[in-house]
Amino acid sequence: MMFQTVTRALLLSSMTPVCRSGVTVRRYCMKNPTKLRVSEAFLDAQVGENVRIQGWVRSFRPQKQNLFLHVNDGSSLKSLQVIAPAGMNDPLLGFGCAVEVKGILKKSPHSKQPVELEAEQIRVIGECNPVDFPFKIKERHSLEYIRQFLHLRCRTNAFSSLLRIRSEATAAVHSYFKNNGFLLIHTPTITSNDCEGAGELFQVEPPGTTFANEGSFFSVPVYLTVSGQLHLEVMSGAFPRVYTFGPTFRAENSQSRRHLAEFFMVEAEISFTESIEDLTKVMEELFRSVTESVLAHCEEDVDLFHKYVAPGHRDTLDDMLRKSFPVITYTEAIDILKRSSETFTFPTDWGCDLMTEHEKFLVKHCGNIPVFVTDYPYDLKPFYARDNQDHPKHTAAAVDLLVPGVGELCGGSLREERLDLLRSRLGECGLEDTYSWYLDLRRFGSVPHGGFGLGFERYLQCILGVDNIKDVIPFPRFSHSCLL
Amino acid sequence: MMFQTVTRALLLSSMTPVCRSGVTVRRYCMKNPTKLRVSEAFLDAQVGENVRIQGWVRSFRPQKQNLFLHVNDGSSLKSLQVIAPAGMNDPLLGFGCAVEVKGILKKSPHSKQPVELEAEQIRVIGECNPVDFPFKIKERHSLEYIRQFLHLRCRTNAFSSLLRIRSEATAAVHSYFKNNGFLLIHTPTITSNDCEGAGELFQVEPPGTTFANEGSFFSVPVYLTVSGQLHLEVMSGAFPRVYTFGPTFRAENSQSRRHLAEFFMVEAEISFTESIEDLTKVMEELFRSVTESVLAHCEEDVDLFHKYVAPGHRDTLDDMLRKSFPVITYTEAIDILKRSSETFTFPTDWGCDLMTEHEKFLVKHCGNIPVFVTDYPYDLKPFYARDNQDHPKHTAAAVDLLVPGVGELCGGSLREERLDLLRSRLGECGLEDTYSWYLDLRRFGSVPHGGFGLGFERYLQCILGVDNIKDVIPFPRFSHSCLL
Repeated sequence: MMFQTVTRALLLSSMTPVCRSGVTVRRYCMKNPTKLRVSEAFLDAQVGENVRIQGWVRSFRPQKQNLFLHVNDGSSLKSLQVIAPAGMNDPLLGFGCAVEVKGILKKSPHSKQPVELEAEQIRVIGECNPVDFPFKIKERHSLEYIRQFLHLRCRTNAFSSLLRIRSEATAAVHSYFKNNGFLLIHTPTITSNDCEGAGELFQVEPPGTTFANEGSFFSVPVYLTVSGQLHLEVMSGAFPRVYTFGPTFRAENSQSRRHLAEFFMVEAEISFTESIEDLTKVMEELFRSVTESVLAHCEEDVDLFHKYVAPGHRDTLDDMLRKSFPVITYTEAIDILKRSSETFTFPTDWGCDLMTEHEKFLVKHCGNIPVFVTDYPYDLKPFYARDNQDHPKHTAAAVDLLVPGVGELCGGSLREERLDLLRSRLGECGLEDTYSWYLDLRRFGSVPHGGFGLGFERYLQCILGVDNIKDVIPFPRFSHSCLL
Repeated sequence: MMFQTVTRALLLSSMTPVCRSGVTVRRYCMKNPTKLRVSEAFLDAQVGENVRIQGWVRSFRPQKQNLFLHVNDGSSLKSLQVIAPAGMNDPLLGFGCAVEVKGILKKSPHSKQPVELEAEQIRVIGECNPVDFPFKIKERHSLEYIRQFLHLRCRTNAFSSLLRIRSEATAAVHSYFKNNGFLLIHTPTITSNDCEGAGELFQVEPPGTTFANEGSFFSVPVYLTVSGQLHLEVMSGAFPRVYTFGPTFRAENSQSRRHLAEFFMVEAEISFTESIEDLTKVMEELFRSVTESVLAHCEEDVDLFHKYVAPGHRDTLDDMLRKSFPVITYTEAIDILKRSSETFTFPTDWGCDLMTEHEKFLVKHCGNIPVFVTDYPYDLKPFYARDNQDHPKHTAAAVDLLVPGVGELCGGSLREERLDLLRSRLGECGLEDTYSWYLDLRRFGSVPHGGFGLGFERYLQCILGVDNIKDVIPFPRFSHSCLL
């Protein structure tokens, strides 16, 4: 230990990078030492090696004899401490600049970090004017503040952690489905369906074209997809387990902290279903599997959120993972709401839709863990929801998953696979011609099937405790805002 | 062998499904035997077991004593042969219908298949009228024919193979990038950039809104993305290796066999690049890695294409994988074209863009394997391409990958990371204000970087030998066509 410190002092006081004590000449004279990622440097295996790292300066502390900097390259939340003789300082060196550092990786004498890099050369690759740069050294900026700088916020600890978590969660979604025999289908973004008949569609045309006429690009009015469900249903006539994962759109004039005009959705469709449990099982497994994977691979990144963004949220999350998700029917949910002493803004009569205030109450009522609500009133659900034929109540085999802090995370249903029932419902809606291809799916080898969609950003909000949905997507799009 | 045959005969001649020789009573009386996917049935481990399979009938042959059917469930190209006593026939049973079959899995006496299912119960789940169903038993329909029925073509062998290959190739793309330290970024679909300044954009608005005015949904004109590059460049200021994989759009008024209005693109961006080789290395590795994974996991599906769709294409593909991809400069390419005896429709003068006919010739000239063409004329490339500063020729550090049968598969470049050069070029184009955020990326910790995009559908065409791009995407969108 003593020897090490002396060696370091010797090294750092010297300016000419040749043949210092404790370093072999051969290593020392290598022109281009091994390029290492910061996360690899922390693995310890390279201690004593001459290495090269590239990244951005996250902290900078020039002292009388030595410079101390932390270099981050996005490979993890951790930055590598670099120590250099004060003479290596450069007027361009500072917070936010890009550097390449060559030197020797050493075990650190400090308990805060296992390794540090003794610099033999620091090259400033790209400077960063600290006056103009919106993020300041040593300051912890709020998520709201950094959101103003969409093109730069990935350079903060918080948002780089979010991006690593998002990438890992995406990989975990694909792994879950692959390991469970699901086929990935790329459902289209542009579609001539308006799926749920909602008014919240975006229409698409080349500029200058008149919409919805024969002279338009596609000859028919086309929209941005609100769901890949109907396209997945096409595939569920040949593959019993399919899923899709991509952007979906709502022209919702809302600035809410739970809504975006463009958001990512995970959707799955399962054939040969026997009951709604075939769906809730997959939803719950998916939630657990992805969350466990994120916790295993992005521990530090998740901790950042649970420490600084949503203190105490880790306990909530652990609770969600420990307990199995309760299932209540819509009718039971209405009973719970009616029996409660809470005053609600919206009515809680059987037949009314559950609003966010109701959803939040139900989640709390069930112990602040995710809860499934099943069998909604038939008249509240779109044409494709399967009729439970349970008059006089008359419900459809639909299910929502409500989660703490967010409300509705997933929505799903069994689909009406019976040709006669589907045809008469489409007839009532005046949609029989529009959806003749959809009726075909029931005419040729129809099977009982169902599926669900999960809002990916809401999922991230739920596990991280992030209040605003704009802080869990790289480039948020919402009414009056489409930056970059 | 003899005994087995006798047992089968005994079994099949009996109509009552109880206590036949060779089958234990306990197994036999199980109400709901293990549900098995067809691909699992072929694994042999379940031979002798009472099982249950669900799927669609791909062939149906009623004989005097027995029925023979093949049931497919999409888990692989293979269908499971089911043998049942003739008395189990059902007027609804036939080609295309959905069935559940319970029975005993046996080693097959025929060499054509390792196992077969001796049915004890066949339940028709969904009928399929053979007159109305557009696909006919025992007929091999062309890709062009099945393309007329987008909602049903997944029920053919060819298109179900394509979907398995597409799903596997997607997984392999993600694996390649994950294994090589790339972070996945979800770049946006809706953007206010028009990226390359091309006129081939789709504009987006809620129906009934006037475009491009202050009253519009986003307050600014917005478009469907033509590339995630600029958004990836944002991220490459904190993460040296990022990628995206999603839909991109061109309002190209083309019915060509290589163009779609909506197609999938894989894009990557790499920081701290030293030369264009940092890009070509990743492109070539990606191509090999994904192709090897597809060949390893979808052998039968790929064989179907190489046997029936593009006979002889396997040799071409093997050649591509065996040889390393040559690299020529644009200037060398022009020399090759000028020296050739071929007559081209378009000019081959230095400064002219390479057209499909030129690209095809160059690929042939280089031995019908993929070839990189680098260092294109500066004036042909968009503002972000890095200036080689090699006057008087004046080229940019751009690269295309040309492949057999398709032409351009990838396009990439080093990006202009030098603030002064980029600013003056943007100034010349009158874009300095529009891209002030892009200039910021160079003002704060800029690093040399570059990237590329790969057309995913063209990649599939290239490895499978599929002539028309509409046959490698589930729901093709092109001018005057947006079905479903």
